[in-house]
Amino acid sequence: MPDHDHDKDLDMDTNGLSTSASQRPHNVPYIHKIGVPPKQSLFKEFKTTVKGTFSSDDPLRRFKDQPKSRKLVLVLEAIFPILEWGRSYNIKKFRGDLIAGLTIASLCIPQDIGYSKLANVASQYGLYSSFVPPLIYAFMGSSRDMVIGPVAVVSLLLGTLVRNEFDPVTQTDEYLRLIFTATFFAGITQATLGFFRLGFLIDFLSHAAVVGFMGGAAITIALQQLKGFLGINPKHFTKHTDIISVMKAVFKSAHHGWNWQTIVFATSFLAFLLIAKYIGKKKPKLFWVPAIAPLISVILSTFFVYITHANDDGVSIVGKFDKRINPPSLEKIYFSGENLTKGFKIGIVAGIIALTEAVAIGRTFASMKDYQVDGNKEMVALGTMNVVGSMTSCYVATGSFSRSAVNYMAGCQTAVSNIVMSIVVLLTVKFLTPFVKYTPSAILSSIIIAAVIGLIDIDAAILIWKIDKLDFVACMGAFLGVVFKSVETGLLIAIAISFAKILLQVTRPRTAILGKIPQKSVYRNIGQYPEAIKVPGVLIVRIDSAIYFLNSNYTKERILRWLTEEEENLRATYQSDIQFLIVEMAPVTDIDTSGIHALEELHRRLQKRDVQLILANPGQVVLDKLYASGFPDLIGENKIFLTVTDAIHTCSPKLAHEV
Amino acid sequence: MPDHDHDKDLDMDTNGLSTSASQRPHNVPYIHKIGVPPKQSLFKEFKTTVKGTFSSDDPLRRFKDQPKSRKLVLVLEAIFPILEWGRSYNIKKFRGDLIAGLTIASLCIPQDIGYSKLANVASQYGLYSSFVPPLIYAFMGSSRDMVIGPVAVVSLLLGTLVRNEFDPVTQTDEYLRLIFTATFFAGITQATLGFFRLGFLIDFLSHAAVVGFMGGAAITIALQQLKGFLGINPKHFTKHTDIISVMKAVFKSAHHGWNWQTIVFATSFLAFLLIAKYIGKKKPKLFWVPAIAPLISVILSTFFVYITHANDDGVSIVGKFDKRINPPSLEKIYFSGENLTKGFKIGIVAGIIALTEAVAIGRTFASMKDYQVDGNKEMVALGTMNVVGSMTSCYVATGSFSRSAVNYMAGCQTAVSNIVMSIVVLLTVKFLTPFVKYTPSAILSSIIIAAVIGLIDIDAAILIWKIDKLDFVACMGAFLGVVFKSVETGLLIAIAISFAKILLQVTRPRTAILGKIPQKSVYRNIGQYPEAIKVPGVLIVRIDSAIYFLNSNYTKERILRWLTEEEENLRATYQSDIQFLIVEMAPVTDIDTSGIHALEELHRRLQKRDVQLILANPGQVVLDKLYASGFPDLIGENKIFLTVTDAIHTCSPKLAHEV
Repeated sequence: MPDHDHDKDLDMDTNGLSTSASQRPHNVPYIHKIGVPPKQSLFKEFKTTVKGTFSSDDPLRRFKDQPKSRKLVLVLEAIFPILEWGRSYNIKKFRGDLIAGLTIASLCIPQDIGYSKLANVASQYGLYSSFVPPLIYAFMGSSRDMVIGPVAVVSLLLGTLVRNEFDPVTQTDEYLRLIFTATFFAGITQATLGFFRLGFLIDFLSHAAVVGFMGGAAITIALQQLKGFLGINPKHFTKHTDIISVMKAVFKSAHHGWNWQTIVFATSFLAFLLIAKYIGKKKPKLFWVPAIAPLISVILSTFFVYITHANDDGVSIVGKFDKRINPPSLEKIYFSGENLTKGFKIGIVAGIIALTEAVAIGRTFASMKDYQVDGNKEMVALGTMNVVGSMTSCYVATGSFSRSAVNYMAGCQTAVSNIVMSIVVLLTVKFLTPFVKYTPSAILSSIIIAAVIGLIDIDAAILIWKIDKLDFVACMGAFLGVVFKSVETGLLIAIAISFAKILLQVTRPRTAILGKIPQKSVYRNIGQYPEAIKVPGVLIVRIDSAIYFLNSNYTKERILRWLTEEEENLRATYQSDIQFLIVEMAPVTDIDTSGIHALEELHRRLQKRDVQLILANPGQVVLDKLYASGFPDLIGENKIFLTVTDAIHTCSPKLAHEV
Repeated sequence: MPDHDHDKDLDMDTNGLSTSASQRPHNVPYIHKIGVPPKQSLFKEFKTTVKGTFSSDDPLRRFKDQPKSRKLVLVLEAIFPILEWGRSYNIKKFRGDLIAGLTIASLCIPQDIGYSKLANVASQYGLYSSFVPPLIYAFMGSSRDMVIGPVAVVSLLLGTLVRNEFDPVTQTDEYLRLIFTATFFAGITQATLGFFRLGFLIDFLSHAAVVGFMGGAAITIALQQLKGFLGINPKHFTKHTDIISVMKAVFKSAHHGWNWQTIVFATSFLAFLLIAKYIGKKKPKLFWVPAIAPLISVILSTFFVYITHANDDGVSIVGKFDKRINPPSLEKIYFSGENLTKGFKIGIVAGIIALTEAVAIGRTFASMKDYQVDGNKEMVALGTMNVVGSMTSCYVATGSFSRSAVNYMAGCQTAVSNIVMSIVVLLTVKFLTPFVKYTPSAILSSIIIAAVIGLIDIDAAILIWKIDKLDFVACMGAFLGVVFKSVETGLLIAIAISFAKILLQVTRPRTAILGKIPQKSVYRNIGQYPEAIKVPGVLIVRIDSAIYFLNSNYTKERILRWLTEEEENLRATYQSDIQFLIVEMAPVTDIDTSGIHALEELHRRLQKRDVQLILANPGQVVLDKLYASGFPDLIGENKIFLTVTDAIHTCSPKLAHEV
């Protein structure tokens, strides 16, 4: 593949910058002009930017060049994906969905009752939230594997935030109304983000922060279960969720006596659940063992209490249960006053956390089965289901990771498994609740502990430590914030550290000195490639970042320092001075006015030192802006090159051939 | 320069990734291994990061390998640069400094009196601030050209913020005390930022935002002068600074009658000042004309009022004047209570704005004379002078652009010109104040208007528009915020837009499809170089950004969309499918755990489509993190290359030679 001494190819247009073919000496290889693309119109530029910001795909591509009636069908299909996949639905798929639906129903019923306690609401509300929302999601959602319902972290978050406003015991009615209000606004938040294609906002929670937050929430949730697990009277327990308050309350309550029957009960069932979980992990074929273990625990323990009347010995039970099915709750939502504001704020936080979980689940399973989930459409579906949920006595529902995994393993085919599950939940509320009354609270605590243990992802934390120390700081910050202070604090810390990290990295870009890789015409970081050779009389610096106001001065000063150091070294060894400073611009993805000022300043400084500034390989955007500012005229038109090699050849042909 | 078919150079260590020499077919050129540098220890890595964050230079380099006594001298010289440059001071330099010092004194005296009005304090405080702070700066500062004193924007900012707390007319004492408290904390803020080498924080105000903010402040200041200019009674004027309130107040006050003598006075002197300014601009040699014009105006108008007793006809005059020289004000500073908090907050804002101005001036003149200004040391000097100033009846002083320019033009040599100026100011306060009493306020308004007009930099705004539309939005946001609402609002808007811009650009990185430049072995964006040729069967994508949690999903989806579009095109034209996806990683300056997850996800998706993922030219940091996460094992060890050319040669040698 020859890359030199070609004089043809002169039919290109001549708005280039490099020395033209006729000027250059014969021994210099072919030098390609730097590409200056035609300027886009302002409107077009704006349109491209906006489009790129709001979606990685092109949502309207499908609608192009279609007749009107077809467009209507496409719109309906876009809102209700069930219309699309429903057409190819068959009995074979239904078999898979039925088995999966029954399995996840058996898992979700005891979990739902337990999670209601985390949200400080009566048990039926958890079940309600596993009836209406999954039904709506089945029609509107695009994930085939996600199971909808209340989840531990969101229940805890909602419970904590709403309890800051009202006491769930003495102000039950206001508390419940605020829960519905928050649920309504959580739904509105989700649908709005999706509708305006602002889904990218949830990316603001980094993976590291989510790992830490989830781990911390799991520990907080487990700590809350000590109450039920040890049979401590709730009156003697703390309302704080941090580990110190909870442990204090636990030891203090030891004076009032723990209930030994409860502890035996809870411990043995927890052991059973954990063993079941272990079996499921070791033998993927036995996935149904951990899936139905909770239901078996509930049935066994309820039966046991029912016949032994252990509740008279102080074993706490779930107690009376509302048999109505999802009573309307629209009139309970606060649509005015300061409670509206409170519900709005809590709703935004809960809605975004719920979204983060659902989107992560949707993406994970979609990638395992290789289908597409449209994040923005998904948010509209989740939002709608929560808005409707808030009017039918549900609290915030979202995708549950543990149930979705069971659903996947059980061989679900479509969202019909959600429909099956919700029907089973409906029948449970209608006909089985008299029995649920006798379910001991301790069993629910065991079920929750067994469920949330999976949220503590130590492997992920270790990997984060290995990859990026600052990410690990964000992860631990979120974790410790949740465990030692509160869920909100942990969230705030996670977001703050994630942002600070990005700003820090933008503020302090890396720069590198490049040398020539032996036997290749490429130039690389001499730190990374110690065998790379510096070109005498030339200093090649690469700027590893866009140049913004945040880093423009630093970058300029850093380059000047490289030059000073290099010159000192050269003088110490009696070598010739630097005559050219070549800046490799490939990683400079963007530049702003401050950045251009810094380059101008750099040029002036270099002039004073008799060093020529040369730019290599600026990208399209950077080049456009350099031209707009007149920078090429300032440093001289023929000082911008396609590659470092070209620059070296042109600037100091003699030196280049010595290497 | 041959870059192919060399089989020597096998003595390198073998921790590389590329196919080794013995494996590759004979017609493939020499492929250099990708550089995997030895892992740094955690402590060393941390040290490097911290060092890089806090300084572009190495502040302790000078102290290395020096005896103790010499170190002490160096430390003293570092704190008081005057010890260093003072040794080579001579009579010739003093001549320059004396002339410059007298010139700037004549400019600063009327300006100081005017700016005191912006800060709502009595006239002498402006003069005080031109006495103590410049003296201290002369000993500690490292700029040779900067003139210290009160400036328009900081005076306005301080006046506005403090007036929100106390009324300057009815609560004069509390108002003044809060001014000193704010000045004290402004100094503390500046010194702290410098001492902890946090100077980079002022870079958070982008050039565009500063241009807009200054322009807006200039208009706001000019509007405030309408009061003095039209001879409106302050009682009938508004306290708001936005353009709408001020214009309303001006027209309303027309009923009470404007003072025609004042208007004639003010207009003619404004015309005189503007003409002087124009002359100075056209003929740089006549720089002294605009410099002494304000003093001449003051002398003429004061003399005129003195003999005509125009003050009896309603021409407002400066009035009585305190003759004491910088009375101590330490006991006036609030060191406790809520006024401490207020002063602290205002001080931080005023201190940072003052810093921004001073650092910009310091840099500008240092670059014109090619000497170094150490930003952090400079901040310690400015901070110290304001702390001492707050204890000697001064308010926040900083570098003044207009006076520094005059100083430079007048041939100043060192900071001694500041000393000369401060002595002249001292003598003025001591002996000339009886005359200042008769100076008409209108003249001061004219002087201020003439001075601040220079802050409106329309050329800069036009350039910003040309270079970067979003920068222009930040600029206009700051401008309109200041003009239509308040100085604080403008500042907030400027900072918010600057940040949003960076986050937006981090969130939505650019990606580009690369093609081969004819006759060269380099691959460039086909959008920028339309002549670049795509390699059949291969899609080369360049990611133009670090991959962070903010953009990892977007980047992944965008690459998959490029692939889908490309495959659709190929199928439409019956060409062979894509077999390799090469990701050019040169601009990927960093990656975090979310980014690595996205790459893993991309690899899985590509596997499903029978496309192989290949990485080219990852940087050192990225490579370290990829290895830490085990990513190279996942995609296959020999899938990472030094250049796209190497990747193409190895992956599809047949295809590469067809091009």
